[in-house]
Amino acid sequence: MRHVWVARLACCYAAHVSDRHPAEPAPDDGVLDLLGILAYASLTAFFRLCDDAALAISLADKAALAEMAVAEFGHFQLLRTRIEEMAADPTAVMQPFVAAVDAFHARTAPSDWLEGLVKAYVGDGIAADFYSAVAQVLDPATKDLVLKVLADTGHAEFVIARVRAAIEADPRVAGRLALWARRLVGEALGQAQRVAAERPPLARMLAGDAASQLGDIGRMFAQLTDAHAARMAALGLAE
Amino acid sequence: MRHVWVARLACCYAAHVSDRHPAEPAPDDGVLDLLGILAYASLTAFFRLCDDAALAISLADKAALAEMAVAEFGHFQLLRTRIEEMAADPTAVMQPFVAAVDAFHARTAPSDWLEGLVKAYVGDGIAADFYSAVAQVLDPATKDLVLKVLADTGHAEFVIARVRAAIEADPRVAGRLALWARRLVGEALGQAQRVAAERPPLARMLAGDAASQLGDIGRMFAQLTDAHAARMAALGLAE
Repeated sequence: MRHVWVARLACCYAAHVSDRHPAEPAPDDGVLDLLGILAYASLTAFFRLCDDAALAISLADKAALAEMAVAEFGHFQLLRTRIEEMAADPTAVMQPFVAAVDAFHARTAPSDWLEGLVKAYVGDGIAADFYSAVAQVLDPATKDLVLKVLADTGHAEFVIARVRAAIEADPRVAGRLALWARRLVGEALGQAQRVAAERPPLARMLAGDAASQLGDIGRMFAQLTDAHAARMAALGLAE
Repeated sequence: MRHVWVARLACCYAAHVSDRHPAEPAPDDGVLDLLGILAYASLTAFFRLCDDAALAISLADKAALAEMAVAEFGHFQLLRTRIEEMAADPTAVMQPFVAAVDAFHARTAPSDWLEGLVKAYVGDGIAADFYSAVAQVLDPATKDLVLKVLADTGHAEFVIARVRAAIEADPRVAGRLALWARRLVGEALGQAQRVAAERPPLARMLAGDAASQLGDIGRMFAQLTDAHAARMAALGLAE
Protein backbone atom coordinates (compact mmCIF):
# COMPACT_ATOMS: atom_id res chain seq x y z
CA MET A 1 0.00 0.00 0.00
CA ARG A 2 2.60 2.51 1.10
CA HIS A 3 4.89 2.32 -1.91
CA VAL A 4 1.96 2.54 -4.28
CA TRP A 5 0.83 5.88 -2.92
CA VAL A 6 4.33 7.30 -2.58
CA ALA A 7 4.84 6.54 -6.28
CA ARG A 8 1.43 7.95 -7.25
CA LEU A 9 2.04 11.21 -5.47
CA ALA A 10 5.63 11.55 -6.65
CA CYS A 11 4.49 11.12 -10.26
CA CYS A 12 1.69 13.55 -9.79
CA TYR A 13 4.03 16.27 -8.51
CA ALA A 14 6.68 15.47 -11.11
CA ALA A 15 4.14 15.97 -13.91
CA HIS A 16 3.73 19.56 -12.80
CA VAL A 17 7.37 20.48 -12.42
CA SER A 18 8.61 19.26 -15.81
CA ASP A 19 8.31 22.72 -17.35
CA ARG A 20 10.44 24.41 -14.68
CA HIS A 21 13.90 25.82 -15.32
CA PRO A 22 16.50 24.74 -12.70
CA ALA A 23 17.61 28.31 -11.95
CA GLU A 24 14.10 29.70 -11.53
CA PRO A 25 13.59 31.01 -7.97
CA ALA A 26 10.69 29.60 -6.00
CA PRO A 27 7.76 31.85 -6.99
CA ASP A 28 6.05 33.75 -4.22
CA ASP A 29 2.66 32.47 -5.20
CA GLY A 30 3.91 28.98 -4.38
CA VAL A 31 4.61 30.14 -0.81
CA LEU A 32 1.23 31.88 -0.62
CA ASP A 33 -0.43 28.76 -2.02
CA LEU A 34 1.22 26.71 0.69
CA LEU A 35 0.19 29.14 3.43
CA GLY A 36 -3.31 29.27 1.94
CA ILE A 37 -3.87 25.53 1.90
CA LEU A 38 -2.37 25.07 5.37
CA ALA A 39 -4.49 27.93 6.75
CA TYR A 40 -7.70 26.62 5.25
CA ALA A 41 -6.88 23.05 6.24
CA SER A 42 -6.25 24.20 9.84
CA LEU A 43 -9.47 26.24 10.00
CA THR A 44 -11.45 23.33 8.61
CA ALA A 45 -9.76 20.82 10.92
CA PHE A 46 -10.87 23.06 13.78
CA PHE A 47 -14.52 22.83 12.71
CA ARG A 48 -14.42 19.11 11.93
CA LEU A 49 -12.73 18.28 15.26
CA CYS A 50 -15.44 20.27 17.03
CA ASP A 51 -18.08 18.22 15.22
CA ASP A 52 -16.30 14.96 15.97
CA ALA A 53 -15.90 15.89 19.64
CA ALA A 54 -19.68 16.07 19.85
CA LEU A 55 -19.68 12.27 19.30
CA ALA A 56 -17.77 11.71 22.56
CA ILE A 57 -19.74 10.23 25.41
CA SER A 58 -17.64 11.48 28.33
CA LEU A 59 -17.10 15.16 29.03
CA ALA A 60 -13.37 14.50 29.49
CA ASP A 61 -13.05 13.01 25.98
CA LYS A 62 -15.15 15.81 24.55
CA ALA A 63 -12.78 18.35 26.14
CA ALA A 64 -9.68 16.46 24.95
CA LEU A 65 -10.81 16.52 21.30
CA ALA A 66 -11.89 20.14 21.68
CA GLU A 67 -8.32 20.88 22.82
CA MET A 68 -6.99 19.44 19.56
CA ALA A 69 -9.48 21.61 17.70
CA VAL A 70 -8.28 24.72 19.52
CA ALA A 71 -4.65 23.87 18.66
CA GLU A 72 -5.69 23.77 14.98
CA PHE A 73 -7.26 27.19 15.32
CA GLY A 74 -3.98 28.46 16.79
CA HIS A 75 -2.21 27.18 13.66
CA PHE A 76 -4.77 28.96 11.51
CA GLN A 77 -4.14 32.24 13.36
CA LEU A 78 -0.36 32.00 12.90
CA LEU A 79 -0.74 31.22 9.20
CA ARG A 80 -3.29 33.98 8.64
CA THR A 81 -0.98 36.52 10.32
CA ARG A 82 1.87 35.45 8.03
CA ILE A 83 -0.35 35.81 4.94
CA GLU A 84 -1.29 39.32 6.07
CA GLU A 85 2.39 40.17 6.64
CA MET A 86 2.94 39.24 3.01
CA ALA A 87 0.34 41.90 2.12
CA ALA A 88 -2.09 39.28 0.85
CA ASP A 89 -5.76 38.74 1.67
CA PRO A 90 -6.20 35.51 3.69
CA THR A 91 -9.62 34.76 2.20
CA ALA A 92 -8.34 35.13 -1.37
CA VAL A 93 -5.27 33.02 -0.61
CA MET A 94 -7.35 30.23 0.98
CA GLN A 95 -10.14 30.24 -1.63
CA PRO A 96 -8.43 28.03 -4.26
CA PHE A 97 -8.20 25.19 -1.72
CA VAL A 98 -11.70 25.29 -0.30
CA ALA A 99 -13.11 22.73 -2.74
CA ALA A 100 -10.37 20.14 -2.21
CA VAL A 101 -10.25 20.41 1.58
CA ASP A 102 -14.05 20.42 1.89
CA ALA A 103 -14.29 17.41 -0.44
CA PHE A 104 -11.82 15.52 1.74
CA HIS A 105 -13.92 16.10 4.84
CA ALA A 106 -17.21 15.42 3.08
CA ARG A 107 -15.84 12.01 2.03
CA THR A 108 -14.39 11.20 5.45
CA ALA A 109 -17.10 12.14 7.94
CA PRO A 110 -16.57 9.75 10.89
CA SER A 111 -19.60 7.57 11.60
CA ASP A 112 -18.71 7.16 15.27
CA TRP A 113 -16.45 8.38 18.05
CA LEU A 114 -13.64 5.86 17.33
CA GLU A 115 -13.49 6.84 13.65
CA GLY A 116 -13.36 10.46 14.77
CA LEU A 117 -10.44 9.68 17.10
CA VAL A 118 -8.50 7.82 14.40
CA LYS A 119 -9.12 10.65 11.94
CA ALA A 120 -7.90 13.23 14.46
CA TYR A 121 -4.78 11.21 15.20
CA VAL A 122 -3.92 10.27 11.63
CA GLY A 123 -4.70 13.76 10.35
CA ASP A 124 -2.74 15.50 13.08
CA GLY A 125 0.21 13.18 12.48
CA ILE A 126 0.28 13.53 8.71
CA ALA A 127 -0.07 17.31 9.03
CA ALA A 128 2.87 17.46 11.48
CA ASP A 129 5.05 15.32 9.18
CA PHE A 130 4.09 17.40 6.19
CA TYR A 131 4.93 20.64 8.01
CA SER A 132 8.30 19.21 9.00
CA ALA A 133 9.05 18.06 5.45
CA VAL A 134 8.01 21.23 3.61
CA ALA A 135 9.87 23.44 6.09
CA GLN A 136 13.08 22.38 4.34
CA VAL A 137 12.17 24.06 1.03
CA LEU A 138 10.91 27.34 2.49
CA ASP A 139 12.41 30.80 2.94
CA PRO A 140 13.64 31.41 6.53
CA ALA A 141 10.59 33.43 7.72
CA THR A 142 8.05 30.93 6.42
CA LYS A 143 10.20 28.06 7.68
CA ASP A 144 10.24 29.57 11.20
CA LEU A 145 6.48 29.86 11.12
CA VAL A 146 5.95 26.30 9.92
CA LEU A 147 8.29 24.93 12.60
CA LYS A 148 6.45 26.98 15.23
CA VAL A 149 3.15 25.48 14.13
CA LEU A 150 4.74 22.05 14.16
CA ALA A 151 6.02 22.46 17.73
CA ASP A 152 2.44 22.95 18.86
CA THR A 153 1.11 19.57 17.68
CA GLY A 154 1.15 16.38 19.73
CA HIS A 155 -2.22 16.81 21.43
CA ALA A 156 -3.34 13.51 19.90
CA GLU A 157 -1.57 11.18 22.33
CA PHE A 158 -4.70 10.53 24.39
CA VAL A 159 -6.15 8.88 21.29
CA ILE A 160 -3.77 5.92 21.54
CA ALA A 161 -5.08 4.83 24.92
CA ARG A 162 -8.71 5.14 23.81
CA VAL A 163 -8.28 3.20 20.57
CA ARG A 164 -6.21 0.45 22.21
CA ALA A 165 -8.81 0.06 24.94
CA ALA A 166 -11.57 -0.24 22.35
CA ILE A 167 -9.62 -2.93 20.46
CA GLU A 168 -9.00 -4.81 23.68
CA ALA A 169 -12.71 -4.76 24.46
CA ASP A 170 -13.62 -5.92 20.95
CA PRO A 171 -10.75 -7.08 18.69
CA ARG A 172 -12.95 -6.83 15.56
CA VAL A 173 -12.72 -3.04 15.92
CA ALA A 174 -9.07 -3.20 14.76
CA GLY A 175 -9.96 -4.39 11.24
CA ARG A 176 -12.64 -1.77 10.76
CA LEU A 177 -10.41 1.07 11.98
CA ALA A 178 -7.44 -0.11 9.88
CA LEU A 179 -9.66 0.06 6.78
CA TRP A 180 -10.86 3.50 7.89
CA ALA A 181 -7.27 4.78 8.29
CA ARG A 182 -6.43 3.52 4.78
CA ARG A 183 -9.48 5.28 3.41
CA LEU A 184 -8.41 8.53 5.11
CA VAL A 185 -4.97 8.35 3.50
CA GLY A 186 -6.49 7.45 0.12
CA GLU A 187 -8.90 10.38 0.19
CA ALA A 188 -6.14 12.75 1.31
CA LEU A 189 -4.02 11.61 -1.62
CA GLY A 190 -6.86 12.04 -4.06
CA GLN A 191 -7.31 15.66 -2.98
CA ALA A 192 -3.55 16.26 -2.94
CA GLN A 193 -3.42 15.16 -6.58
CA ARG A 194 -6.24 17.53 -7.41
CA VAL A 195 -4.45 20.43 -5.69
CA ALA A 196 -1.17 19.64 -7.45
CA ALA A 197 -2.97 19.56 -10.79
CA GLU A 198 -4.71 22.87 -10.16
CA ARG A 199 -1.77 24.75 -8.58
CA PRO A 200 1.45 24.18 -10.55
CA PRO A 201 3.39 26.88 -8.59
CA LEU A 202 2.78 25.00 -5.35
CA ALA A 203 3.73 21.68 -6.93
CA ARG A 204 6.91 23.27 -8.33
CA MET A 205 7.90 24.84 -5.03
CA LEU A 206 7.53 21.60 -3.10
CA ALA A 207 9.52 19.75 -5.76
CA GLY A 208 12.68 21.81 -5.13
CA ASP A 209 15.15 22.23 -8.01
CA ALA A 210 14.80 20.14 -11.13
CA ALA A 211 17.89 17.99 -10.60
CA SER A 212 16.74 16.63 -7.28
CA GLN A 213 13.00 16.94 -7.52
CA LEU A 214 12.12 13.28 -7.86
CA GLY A 215 14.53 12.26 -5.11
CA ASP A 216 13.30 14.97 -2.76
CA ILE A 217 9.66 14.21 -3.29
CA GLY A 218 10.32 10.51 -2.95
CA ARG A 219 12.21 11.07 0.31
CA MET A 220 9.54 13.37 1.65
CA PHE A 221 6.73 10.94 1.00
CA ALA A 222 8.77 7.99 2.21
CA GLN A 223 9.24 9.81 5.52
CA LEU A 224 5.53 10.63 5.66
CA THR A 225 4.52 7.03 5.07
CA ASP A 226 7.07 5.60 7.52
CA ALA A 227 5.69 7.91 10.20
CA HIS A 228 2.14 6.95 9.23
CA ALA A 229 3.03 3.26 9.60
CA ALA A 230 4.49 3.99 13.06
CA ARG A 231 1.26 5.71 14.07
CA MET A 232 -0.85 2.81 12.87
CA ALA A 233 1.31 0.47 14.96
CA ALA A 234 0.94 2.75 18.00
CA LEU A 235 -2.85 2.52 17.65
CA GLY A 236 -2.61 -1.27 17.37
CA LEU A 237 -3.79 -1.21 13.75
CA ALA A 238 -2.37 -3.02 10.71
CA GLU A 239 -1.15 -0.53 8.12
CA MET B 1 -39.81 43.36 30.21
CA ARG B 2 -36.64 43.99 32.17
CA HIS B 3 -38.18 44.62 35.58
CA VAL B 4 -40.40 41.59 35.26
CA TRP B 5 -37.51 39.21 34.89
CA VAL B 6 -35.34 40.91 37.51
CA ALA B 7 -38.19 40.40 39.96
CA ARG B 8 -38.78 36.80 38.86
CA LEU B 9 -35.17 35.84 39.31
CA ALA B 10 -34.77 37.71 42.60
CA CYS B 11 -37.80 35.87 44.02
CA CYS B 12 -36.53 32.59 42.74
CA TYR B 13 -33.18 33.00 44.50
CA ALA B 14 -34.78 34.40 47.65
CA ALA B 15 -36.99 31.29 47.95
CA HIS B 16 -33.87 29.18 48.27
CA VAL B 17 -32.04 31.27 50.83
CA SER B 18 -34.83 31.65 53.37
CA ASP B 19 -33.58 28.72 55.47
CA ARG B 20 -30.07 30.10 55.80
CA HIS B 21 -28.60 31.41 59.07
CA PRO B 22 -26.88 34.82 58.69
CA ALA B 23 -23.61 33.63 60.27
CA GLU B 24 -23.31 30.49 58.15
CA PRO B 25 -20.16 30.62 56.00
CA ALA B 26 -20.58 30.21 52.23
CA PRO B 27 -20.41 26.42 51.73
CA ASP B 28 -17.66 25.08 49.50
CA ASP B 29 -20.10 23.15 47.37
CA GLY B 30 -21.63 26.49 46.38
CA VAL B 31 -18.25 27.54 44.98
CA LEU B 32 -17.82 24.18 43.24
CA ASP B 33 -21.36 24.46 41.88
CA LEU B 34 -20.53 27.88 40.48
CA LEU B 35 -17.27 26.65 38.92
CA GLY B 36 -19.11 23.60 37.58
CA ILE B 37 -21.88 25.52 35.84
CA LEU B 38 -19.45 28.11 34.46
CA ALA B 39 -17.12 25.36 33.20
CA TYR B 40 -19.89 23.39 31.52
CA ALA B 41 -21.47 26.56 30.11
CA SER B 42 -18.08 27.58 28.64
CA LEU B 43 -17.42 24.16 27.14
CA THR B 44 -20.90 24.09 25.64
CA ALA B 45 -20.62 27.66 24.35
CA PHE B 46 -17.45 26.54 22.61
CA PHE B 47 -19.30 23.77 20.75
CA ARG B 48 -22.37 25.86 19.95
CA LEU B 49 -20.27 28.78 18.63
CA CYS B 50 -18.41 26.30 16.41
CA ASP B 51 -21.75 25.09 15.05
CA ASP B 52 -23.03 28.62 14.56
CA ALA B 53 -19.81 29.67 12.81
CA ALA B 54 -20.55 27.02 10.19
CA LEU B 55 -23.55 29.18 9.16
CA ALA B 56 -21.25 32.05 8.13
CA ILE B 57 -20.87 32.65 4.42
CA SER B 58 -17.49 34.40 4.42
CA LEU B 59 -14.34 32.76 5.68
CA ALA B 60 -13.49 35.91 7.67
CA ASP B 61 -16.79 35.76 9.58
CA LYS B 62 -16.37 32.06 10.13
CA ALA B 63 -12.93 32.69 11.62
CA ALA B 64 -14.20 35.58 13.78
CA LEU B 65 -16.90 33.42 15.37
CA ALA B 66 -14.43 30.55 15.75
CA GLU B 67 -12.21 32.99 17.68
CA MET B 68 -15.05 33.61 20.14
CA ALA B 69 -15.46 29.85 20.47
CA VAL B 70 -11.76 29.42 21.24
CA ALA B 71 -11.97 32.13 23.93
CA GLU B 72 -14.78 30.13 25.55
CA PHE B 73 -12.61 27.04 25.54
CA GLY B 74 -9.88 29.06 27.26
CA HIS B 75 -12.38 29.93 29.99
CA PHE B 76 -13.28 26.27 30.31
CA GLN B 77 -9.60 25.34 30.74
CA LEU B 78 -9.07 27.94 33.49
CA LEU B 79 -12.19 26.81 35.34
CA ARG B 80 -11.34 23.12 35.00
CA THR B 81 -7.84 23.77 36.40
CA ARG B 82 -9.35 25.57 39.38
CA ILE B 83 -11.78 22.67 40.02
CA GLU B 84 -8.85 20.25 39.95
CA GLU B 85 -6.89 22.48 42.35
CA MET B 86 -9.83 22.13 44.73
CA ALA B 87 -9.29 18.34 44.54
CA ALA B 88 -12.61 17.82 42.78
CA ASP B 89 -13.40 15.91 39.58
CA PRO B 90 -14.40 18.34 36.80
CA THR B 91 -16.83 15.90 35.20
CA ALA B 92 -18.63 15.26 38.50
CA VAL B 93 -18.75 18.98 39.27
CA MET B 94 -20.17 19.85 35.83
CA GLN B 95 -22.67 16.96 35.65
CA PRO B 96 -25.51 18.57 37.69
CA PHE B 97 -25.70 21.42 35.15
CA VAL B 98 -25.60 19.44 31.92
CA ALA B 99 -29.40 19.17 31.61
CA ALA B 100 -30.10 22.90 32.16
CA VAL B 101 -27.31 24.18 29.88
CA ASP B 102 -28.13 21.64 27.14
CA ALA B 103 -31.83 22.52 27.39
CA PHE B 104 -31.00 26.21 26.95
CA HIS B 105 -29.08 25.51 23.74
CA ALA B 106 -31.63 23.00 22.43
CA ARG B 107 -34.31 25.69 22.77
CA THR B 108 -32.18 28.45 21.23
CA ALA B 109 -30.58 26.89 18.17
CA PRO B 110 -30.12 29.81 15.73
CA SER B 111 -31.94 29.35 12.44
CA ASP B 112 -29.54 31.55 10.51
CA TRP B 113 -26.24 33.39 10.69
CA LEU B 114 -27.71 36.62 12.12
CA GLU B 115 -29.45 34.77 14.95
CA GLY B 116 -26.15 33.02 15.64
CA LEU B 117 -24.36 36.38 15.81
CA VAL B 118 -26.93 37.88 18.17
CA LYS B 119 -26.81 34.80 20.37
CA ALA B 120 -23.00 34.96 20.51
CA TYR B 121 -23.06 38.65 21.38
CA VAL B 122 -25.88 38.53 23.91
CA GLY B 123 -24.54 35.35 25.50
CA ASP B 124 -20.98 36.63 25.70
CA GLY B 125 -22.20 39.89 27.21
CA ILE B 126 -24.47 38.35 29.82
CA ALA B 127 -21.73 35.88 30.77
CA ALA B 128 -19.22 38.71 31.22
CA ASP B 129 -21.65 40.72 33.36
CA PHE B 130 -22.48 37.68 35.43
CA TYR B 131 -18.79 36.93 36.00
CA SER B 132 -18.21 40.49 37.08
CA ALA B 133 -21.20 40.44 39.47
CA VAL B 134 -20.51 37.08 41.12
CA ALA B 135 -16.82 37.90 41.58
CA GLN B 136 -17.89 40.14 44.47
CA VAL B 137 -19.19 37.27 46.61
CA LEU B 138 -16.29 34.86 46.03
CA ASP B 139 -13.19 33.90 48.02
CA PRO B 140 -10.03 35.67 46.75
CA ALA B 141 -8.64 32.74 44.69
CA THR B 142 -11.94 32.07 42.90
CA LYS B 143 -12.49 35.80 42.45
CA ASP B 144 -9.06 36.17 40.78
CA LEU B 145 -9.93 33.35 38.42
CA VAL B 146 -13.33 34.76 37.53
CA LEU B 147 -11.86 38.22 36.86
CA LYS B 148 -9.16 36.62 34.71
CA VAL B 149 -11.82 34.87 32.64
CA LEU B 150 -13.75 38.12 32.42
CA ALA B 151 -10.72 40.04 31.13
CA ASP B 152 -10.58 37.67 28.19
CA THR B 153 -14.06 38.42 26.82
CA GLY B 154 -14.90 41.16 24.36
CA HIS B 155 -14.34 39.21 21.16
CA ALA B 156 -17.94 39.91 20.16
CA GLU B 157 -17.44 43.48 18.95
CA PHE B 158 -17.36 42.48 15.28
CA VAL B 159 -20.96 41.38 15.68
CA ILE B 160 -22.20 44.96 16.03
CA ALA B 161 -21.04 45.97 12.56
CA ARG B 162 -22.54 42.85 10.96
CA VAL B 163 -25.95 43.18 12.63
CA ARG B 164 -26.19 46.91 11.95
CA ALA B 165 -25.32 46.36 8.29
CA ALA B 166 -28.00 43.66 8.02
CA ILE B 167 -30.61 46.00 9.54
CA GLU B 168 -29.57 48.79 7.18
CA ALA B 169 -30.03 46.46 4.23
CA ASP B 170 -33.42 45.26 5.46
CA PRO B 171 -34.98 47.16 8.40
CA ARG B 172 -37.50 44.33 9.02
CA VAL B 173 -34.56 42.28 10.35
CA ALA B 174 -34.48 44.47 13.49
CA GLY B 175 -37.89 43.31 14.73
CA ARG B 176 -37.12 39.65 14.19
CA LEU B 177 -33.74 39.89 15.95
CA ALA B 178 -35.16 41.90 18.87
CA LEU B 179 -37.72 39.12 19.45
CA TRP B 180 -34.94 36.57 19.18
CA ALA B 181 -32.82 38.40 21.81
CA ARG B 182 -35.81 38.50 24.17
CA ARG B 183 -36.34 34.79 23.66
CA LEU B 184 -32.66 34.13 24.49
CA VAL B 185 -32.95 36.04 27.76
CA GLY B 186 -36.24 34.32 28.60
CA GLU B 187 -34.82 30.85 28.01
CA ALA B 188 -31.68 31.69 30.01
CA LEU B 189 -33.87 32.82 32.91
CA GLY B 190 -35.97 29.68 32.73
CA GLN B 191 -32.88 27.52 33.06
CA ALA B 192 -31.42 29.78 35.80
CA GLN B 193 -34.61 29.23 37.83
CA ARG B 194 -34.28 25.50 37.33
CA VAL B 195 -30.64 25.55 38.49
CA ALA B 196 -31.49 27.69 41.53
CA ALA B 197 -34.28 25.26 42.47
CA GLU B 198 -32.04 22.23 42.09
CA ARG B 199 -28.91 23.68 43.76
CA PRO B 200 -29.76 25.56 46.97
CA PRO B 201 -26.07 25.94 48.02
CA LEU B 202 -25.35 27.86 44.81
CA ALA B 203 -28.46 30.01 45.24
CA ARG B 204 -27.45 30.71 48.86
CA MET B 205 -23.88 31.61 47.96
CA LEU B 206 -24.93 34.07 45.26
CA ALA B 207 -27.45 35.64 47.63
CA GLY B 208 -24.78 36.78 50.10
CA ASP B 209 -25.75 37.22 53.76
CA ALA B 210 -29.39 37.12 54.77
CA ALA B 211 -29.65 40.81 55.71
CA SER B 212 -28.68 42.06 52.27
CA GLN B 213 -29.67 39.18 50.05
CA LEU B 214 -32.65 40.74 48.32
CA GLY B 215 -30.86 44.03 47.78
CA ASP B 216 -27.74 42.32 46.47
CA ILE B 217 -29.61 40.08 44.08
CA GLY B 218 -31.75 42.96 42.92
CA ARG B 219 -28.67 45.11 42.29
CA MET B 220 -26.87 42.30 40.50
CA PHE B 221 -29.75 41.62 38.13
CA ALA B 222 -30.43 45.31 37.62
CA GLN B 223 -26.82 45.71 36.49
CA LEU B 224 -27.14 42.69 34.22
CA THR B 225 -30.27 44.00 32.60
CA ASP B 226 -28.96 47.54 32.19
CA ALA B 227 -25.93 46.13 30.41
CA HIS B 228 -28.19 43.92 28.29
CA ALA B 229 -30.24 46.97 27.29
CA ALA B 230 -27.04 48.79 26.31
CA ARG B 231 -26.01 45.84 24.13
CA MET B 232 -29.38 45.75 22.41
CA ALA B 233 -29.02 49.46 21.66
CA ALA B 234 -25.50 48.90 20.28
CA LEU B 235 -26.91 46.30 17.89
CA GLY B 236 -29.65 48.71 16.82
CA LEU B 237 -32.36 46.53 18.40
CA ALA B 238 -35.28 47.54 20.63
CA GLU B 239 -34.98 45.88 24.04
